[in-house]
Amino acid sequence: MVEKRQIKLGLSMQGYGYHHSGWLDPAAPVGGAVDFRHYLDMTRTAEAGLFDMVFLADFVAFPMVDLPKGALGRRDRDSLEPLSLLSALAPQTQNVGLVATMSTTFAEPYHTARAYASIDHISGGRVGWNVVTSFQDEEAKNFGSSKILEKELRYERAEEFVDVVCGLWNSFEVDAFPRDKSAGVYFDPAKVRILNHVGKHFRVKGPLTVPPTPQGRPVIVQAGASAPGQELAARTADVVYAVQNTLEDAQKFYRSLKGRMARYGRAEDELKVMPGLLAVIGDTEQAARAKYKQMQEMVDPMVGLEYLARVFGDLSGYPLDGPVPDLRQDTQLASRSEVLLNVARRNNYSIRQLFQSVAIGNAHNTLVGTPEQIVDTMEAWFLGGGADGFNILPAVSPASLREFVQHIVPELQRRGLFRTSYEGSTLRENLGLPAPKNLAPTNIGAVAAH
Amino acid sequence: MVEKRQIKLGLSMQGYGYHHSGWLDPAAPVGGAVDFRHYLDMTRTAEAGLFDMVFLADFVAFPMVDLPKGALGRRDRDSLEPLSLLSALAPQTQNVGLVATMSTTFAEPYHTARAYASIDHISGGRVGWNVVTSFQDEEAKNFGSSKILEKELRYERAEEFVDVVCGLWNSFEVDAFPRDKSAGVYFDPAKVRILNHVGKHFRVKGPLTVPPTPQGRPVIVQAGASAPGQELAARTADVVYAVQNTLEDAQKFYRSLKGRMARYGRAEDELKVMPGLLAVIGDTEQAARAKYKQMQEMVDPMVGLEYLARVFGDLSGYPLDGPVPDLRQDTQLASRSEVLLNVARRNNYSIRQLFQSVAIGNAHNTLVGTPEQIVDTMEAWFLGGGADGFNILPAVSPASLREFVQHIVPELQRRGLFRTSYEGSTLRENLGLPAPKNLAPTNIGAVAAH
Repeated sequence: MVEKRQIKLGLSMQGYGYHHSGWLDPAAPVGGAVDFRHYLDMTRTAEAGLFDMVFLADFVAFPMVDLPKGALGRRDRDSLEPLSLLSALAPQTQNVGLVATMSTTFAEPYHTARAYASIDHISGGRVGWNVVTSFQDEEAKNFGSSKILEKELRYERAEEFVDVVCGLWNSFEVDAFPRDKSAGVYFDPAKVRILNHVGKHFRVKGPLTVPPTPQGRPVIVQAGASAPGQELAARTADVVYAVQNTLEDAQKFYRSLKGRMARYGRAEDELKVMPGLLAVIGDTEQAARAKYKQMQEMVDPMVGLEYLARVFGDLSGYPLDGPVPDLRQDTQLASRSEVLLNVARRNNYSIRQLFQSVAIGNAHNTLVGTPEQIVDTMEAWFLGGGADGFNILPAVSPASLREFVQHIVPELQRRGLFRTSYEGSTLRENLGLPAPKNLAPTNIGAVAAH
Repeated sequence: MVEKRQIKLGLSMQGYGYHHSGWLDPAAPVGGAVDFRHYLDMTRTAEAGLFDMVFLADFVAFPMVDLPKGALGRRDRDSLEPLSLLSALAPQTQNVGLVATMSTTFAEPYHTARAYASIDHISGGRVGWNVVTSFQDEEAKNFGSSKILEKELRYERAEEFVDVVCGLWNSFEVDAFPRDKSAGVYFDPAKVRILNHVGKHFRVKGPLTVPPTPQGRPVIVQAGASAPGQELAARTADVVYAVQNTLEDAQKFYRSLKGRMARYGRAEDELKVMPGLLAVIGDTEQAARAKYKQMQEMVDPMVGLEYLARVFGDLSGYPLDGPVPDLRQDTQLASRSEVLLNVARRNNYSIRQLFQSVAIGNAHNTLVGTPEQIVDTMEAWFLGGGADGFNILPAVSPASLREFVQHIVPELQRRGLFRTSYEGSTLRENLGLPAPKNLAPTNIGAVAAH
């Protein structure tokens, strides 16, 4: 039976949502950024909407840059450690996938492999690892360095890190633990694969303490859009979160990424590309636009200026309703300041209008309209080679997610574009991914030589 | 109101229990060592019995030494990562404390502080950290080294590690997060304490991403009995697991440990000493003895020989029912081989009798008798200055725990030695520990200078 290709949906569960002043919403839960019940509520809503997975981003530092002065305390910056949160959600849910971020720059592969394998057991095969390399000095300062590792080294370390983790997940044949009481045999030492990894960044012997997991291998997620990021994803990722705003850009990224997979012996459908999408839904287009305008006006100007300061530096000396000065920074964010300045120039935006346009959704693709209009665009991207699914960014949590589940999911289902029940019991099955090839560690090493 | 001092109870949740062939018990759950439901069942039983806490030990390697040959596969050695398991248990329970082990030798203080603080939020203030330094090369080999760090350096690192973690838990004043929507103030930057730790082993800037937790500071547990271990505990621990077999030894350890606290400005009741205790319960003393004998006969001889091999080397060439040869090893376990040889000589034990006497409970204090007899001993230790409570080691899980809750807990309550309901909502409250002194990082550094 050939199954019809359908859209995959993820939910990004950032604290109060992607509206930078989302916590000010009267309906927003107090303590939402570190309140377990809030995340449980979100996850159960996503599960009721048959989402493939929920996702926790991460930043391993509490930002303390007060620019402009007085802006620092005006939004949420606290967070729970993602794996702790993920594991707590596991027994409280049944079907939805659970993806958490762990940076390869600050972690140990053995701890990482072990934690995700454990949560895969606890959740019955629903865990995913979002692999990031981190890029901010603020994070490095919590781990013994004053500056973040240089990009090339970070990716070199990440490549090796992912290989070690996959090797450790592959520590045992699937039937290595017979637990046969009558024969007195708990496990079969002949079915153990000692990794014995010796590389530039890591020396890890193995085996893992955790028997083969329900998924065989937790789902690997990535988001790096740079060339080394795409290369790592083409070789190792099952899902990639993308950031394009137009179908054309999305198609370009989609082709670039999938075009790299053949050299690693992988078929294109073994990787799902899921661009971020922020939906502002109304009964009419006009109602949706009014709602979006209201959201924009809710952006605390200090928070808006703080957002722009990360890219342009301090703009607090300029009139809020005047033009955006050209203060492009020569930093890691140079390309970002270029993009934002172009947005301002093209639309003739004031400083206020600029931050109002980006402080909701971090400039991810924002669709404002009726459910039909929004689904039209999703369908065009999905059928037009721009996306295999979407990573949904609620503007305000949990309200925006509830609206999505109530209005967008049924419209997707009506068009046959989305499931009406979960296909399988593991995240890998629901994503329609093939069972992992049970590579022996030596084979993994050979692939890593690329 | 002066509250009556009462016994504290912990449960050590090692997979199938402390019987080394426990998995062979017909009632033992298949997959128990990595089956979440088994741990959930145990934890809920402990909570029904009003235990202060459950505890997860840890060994960060899958042992692969096959000595004697053929012994390796005959018992459970698999395990879940303890923090993942702990966090999954948190929302499924209401009152019982949750303690997991994390070794300071292989972890990062920032990750560690963040994970425990997160689980303290998720559990509503019930988390504890069992601080260990690890001592086996097998573990080091999963983290880049061929040999474990030398003991003095391990403890030096542990001292600094604990200080950094406590400093990070202390990143914010308790009222640093007003989350005041009308004023637009989420948090108050003036109430942040940047740690800026620079030490021999770690450089960690802080602050943590996690706001002050329900307990203020997670409970710190330790078990090191050596002089540096006792010193670390006297300065930083809230609970110490002990291993003595006689009241006299227990009193000696209790006095030695508590006698070290004054120099750190701590009162003796700020630390609870909890020796391990394995209870084999019968309606009559004779029934209990028969049950214990049956348990001993359940020890798989290969598993027994494997246990002795870790201390003496391979004894498989000697007759099982003959005398124990003097094969003391000059290793880290030298003192252990001395102890075991003395046990054998004193009792005139054969090899089989020796492993049957130690392969249940790792030679922890084993009480065999009626509930009254067992509680008599517990009472004598508790009132005689040998213990503030006990860490209960079920021989076979979950059967031995069920018996303890059914027979020992009511007898303790009848004598007024144990609670009849939880006193508070946090582990710290239930243990009767004082609220943590909210030390500024500089003060912590000063104490660390000892």
